[in-house]
Amino acid sequence: MNPPYLLFDVGGTDIKSALSDEAGNLLGIRRVPTRRGTPDPAASLIDQLHGLGSDLMAQSPLLVPQAVGLLVCGIVDEDAGLGVFSANLGWRDAPLREMASKAFALPVGFGHDVSTAGAAELRFGAGAALGTKVRNAVVLVIGTGIAAALFVDGHAVSAGGYAGELGHAAVPVGFDCPCGAHGCLETIGSAGAIAKRYTQASGRSVDGAREVLEAMETGDPVAARIWNEAVEAIAFSIAQLCSSIAPEAVIIGGGLAQAGEALLEPLRRSLRNKLSYHREPLIVPARLGQDAGLRGAYLKAAEAREVHP
Amino acid sequence: MNPPYLLFDVGGTDIKSALSDEAGNLLGIRRVPTRRGTPDPAASLIDQLHGLGSDLMAQSPLLVPQAVGLLVCGIVDEDAGLGVFSANLGWRDAPLREMASKAFALPVGFGHDVSTAGAAELRFGAGAALGTKVRNAVVLVIGTGIAAALFVDGHAVSAGGYAGELGHAAVPVGFDCPCGAHGCLETIGSAGAIAKRYTQASGRSVDGAREVLEAMETGDPVAARIWNEAVEAIAFSIAQLCSSIAPEAVIIGGGLAQAGEALLEPLRRSLRNKLSYHREPLIVPARLGQDAGLRGAYLKAAEAREVHP
Repeated sequence: MNPPYLLFDVGGTDIKSALSDEAGNLLGIRRVPTRRGTPDPAASLIDQLHGLGSDLMAQSPLLVPQAVGLLVCGIVDEDAGLGVFSANLGWRDAPLREMASKAFALPVGFGHDVSTAGAAELRFGAGAALGTKVRNAVVLVIGTGIAAALFVDGHAVSAGGYAGELGHAAVPVGFDCPCGAHGCLETIGSAGAIAKRYTQASGRSVDGAREVLEAMETGDPVAARIWNEAVEAIAFSIAQLCSSIAPEAVIIGGGLAQAGEALLEPLRRSLRNKLSYHREPLIVPARLGQDAGLRGAYLKAAEAREVHP
Repeated sequence: MNPPYLLFDVGGTDIKSALSDEAGNLLGIRRVPTRRGTPDPAASLIDQLHGLGSDLMAQSPLLVPQAVGLLVCGIVDEDAGLGVFSANLGWRDAPLREMASKAFALPVGFGHDVSTAGAAELRFGAGAALGTKVRNAVVLVIGTGIAAALFVDGHAVSAGGYAGELGHAAVPVGFDCPCGAHGCLETIGSAGAIAKRYTQASGRSVDGAREVLEAMETGDPVAARIWNEAVEAIAFSIAQLCSSIAPEAVIIGGGLAQAGEALLEPLRRSLRNKLSYHREPLIVPARLGQDAGLRGAYLKAAEAREVHP
């Protein structure tokens, strides 16, 4: 039994919020657009979170939250409680943990969205299905962009917020990236890149990677080429990890993972071709879906309460 | 004050051995060829180590060793005490720690040669000069081959012995590798590859990468091309790490590091060109030289004695 917690998962596009009950159920799950373009983005975020929290508490007046779990996107220094940098939301070195703690008058567990959602995936999702022996793992989230949570000997790798930025690691066939580097995995392996590159190559506008997959399955050779290039690029990046931290499992989440075996099967094959004596990781789909971040915020809130009794 | 230890650093080519005194000095440092081609390579190794240990003890009869520090090359499972695999020496899943402990009737601290030498470099060498704030670091050893020791949050990453195999991570311009994979960093960025590729391209036989560097410094364009391709490849692999575990420092050791700033300066420049918002690591030379392994074995012996009082 845990006390109720207020949970927030702040992304560049939207904020998910919920209140957890004593059994750990997520109540009142809601998704609203993240307020953007304000002069003080950190203060504006805290104000928006306060409003969302008040709504949740009004809906469930008998549940009195004892801590807050707050995840944010960008470069995050979990130890210092800082939002170091968010290209989308605009803050720099914002003391978000302290600001949230003051606004709610509660202890706040603070973390990076992808890293903490990955920790929840490892504990409650695909990782739980793999068993406790998997202590070296990667949760690779492939959507509009690509990010990852890395786990070494059972611990999340943070490196001051700079770890797991796999979307901005170079692959041999990558292109110039808006981040300023060249060849980033995101420019070829993300769901966003698949859709964009297919539209450019075929002249046919598509909404997302799903349509490219459907085109491939009807025999469209352009779609097949774009899809395969994405798979090759993702496999290249995973192979790099097999030579550095050597994960036992790679858990694939995000929008592109909805392709299921159409993604995972060629990914395993491509990876196997790239490895020799290396340890080949299991490649499995994520299980928690959209709520992985709120589940991660729950873990953070529980930690914060232990630290601040 | 520590008691004396017997120290062994077993590589594919040779074994270094020494006895440490109470002040931690290494006495009787000796390098002999590793015995090879025997039907039982693990038993043969232990027999050879026993002979070397007896010699050391005969030289310093007043120093009675209280533990053994044993490092071996290949894939090593430090927790289980196993030499999992050595392509050069031929064992598979050999219980080397237990075998050495029986042979010497002493507790044995057991580790991987590169990983443990890296730990010593971090503690006593370049890492000590960088200060205690560096908790995420890579010690990259570039010689005939390339291997690395990775440190995350101050802890060595082992991953069952499969971590740090950077020599066998692909780079865009790499070639087929004897390991069975394609594009391995070792095929272009190692001292061995630099010498071999220069000989192939120029028709002039050289003994090592040092001669290629000397040729470059006299204006040889072939030498400059081969050297620069090696630097680019090494920088590519380091940039991958900047997107995954984001080290604060990369310590370069091994034979190629003797080139000093002729290697490190272009390496820093090439790396900087590949990064955007990533955290740029310090790139510094290793300091311990040939004895890093024995210093690491010393750390392992001291650990073993704490575990088995």
